[in-house]
Amino acid sequence: MNDPSSNHTAYAVKPIGIARTPFRDTSQIPKGKGARHTAEGTLEIRPELEAGLTDIEGFSHLFVLWLFHRADGFDLVTRVPVDEHRAHGVFSTRTSRRPNPIGLTVVELLERSGASLRVRGVDMLDGTPILDIKPYLSSIPSEKLRRGWLD
Amino acid sequence: MNDPSSNHTAYAVKPIGIARTPFRDTSQIPKGKGARHTAEGTLEIRPELEAGLTDIEGFSHLFVLWLFHRADGFDLVTRVPVDEHRAHGVFSTRTSRRPNPIGLTVVELLERSGASLRVRGVDMLDGTPILDIKPYLSSIPSEKLRRGWLD
Repeated sequence: MNDPSSNHTAYAVKPIGIARTPFRDTSQIPKGKGARHTAEGTLEIRPELEAGLTDIEGFSHLFVLWLFHRADGFDLVTRVPVDEHRAHGVFSTRTSRRPNPIGLTVVELLERSGASLRVRGVDMLDGTPILDIKPYLSSIPSEKLRRGWLD
Repeated sequence: MNDPSSNHTAYAVKPIGIARTPFRDTSQIPKGKGARHTAEGTLEIRPELEAGLTDIEGFSHLFVLWLFHRADGFDLVTRVPVDEHRAHGVFSTRTSRRPNPIGLTVVELLERSGASLRVRGVDMLDGTPILDIKPYLSSIPSEKLRRGWLD
């Protein structure tokens, strides 16, 4: 590395809210090939941040960044439910045991009520800390996608 | 909030590497409506994490999570280059001045060389700390997207 100092600084993040979902245990979350994420949930944003949601109703889909708050440590290679027979690099998967345990989910925005967003497509545990919400703006056309070991 | 304690815990994140890009200053990064992100750059992952990149060559596109490491504080409502005349909620924009200054970019993977990934589509400053890499798996069809105040 040309600038090793950049790699050793730790930064603090602080949740902007929590997710309310139907999932009390990771075993309840649909996983693996063909898993459909249609569960509804609520993103409860901290009341003092409500103004940050201004205009969000106009977007059909959102990126949600959140913490795998129950993950303990990480693996560099791992087996995941979608392909139990081969191990893959952690950065080639969406496993929870990552160097930085940050999850990323695209949800459909159904309704906003003050600082609460009702959404479809949650795949995180109830009580999950939310780090950020961003508008989902565009797609890579499916004909241009290669999905690696998943195909 | 039903569980306020979840909202006040700070978590530490630590970069997994840094991005090498052509951009020394934010003014050099294409912004606003119609901005095209075709710049090439390199994601230099920490050598001890190289095994985590196993199989990543098979994916055409990757999500990169990174830190706006020069951002200082945040705004709840903000004006952005794509619409300078109206302010929008921070979570309705991709501005750097966010409660958690985490950026998200979809890049095209061109080549892997050990712990370095050559990619197209970088829009972050040279030296940006990288937090995570995930495979980009699917798209929301464009006919199902609403892009809020951007449309």
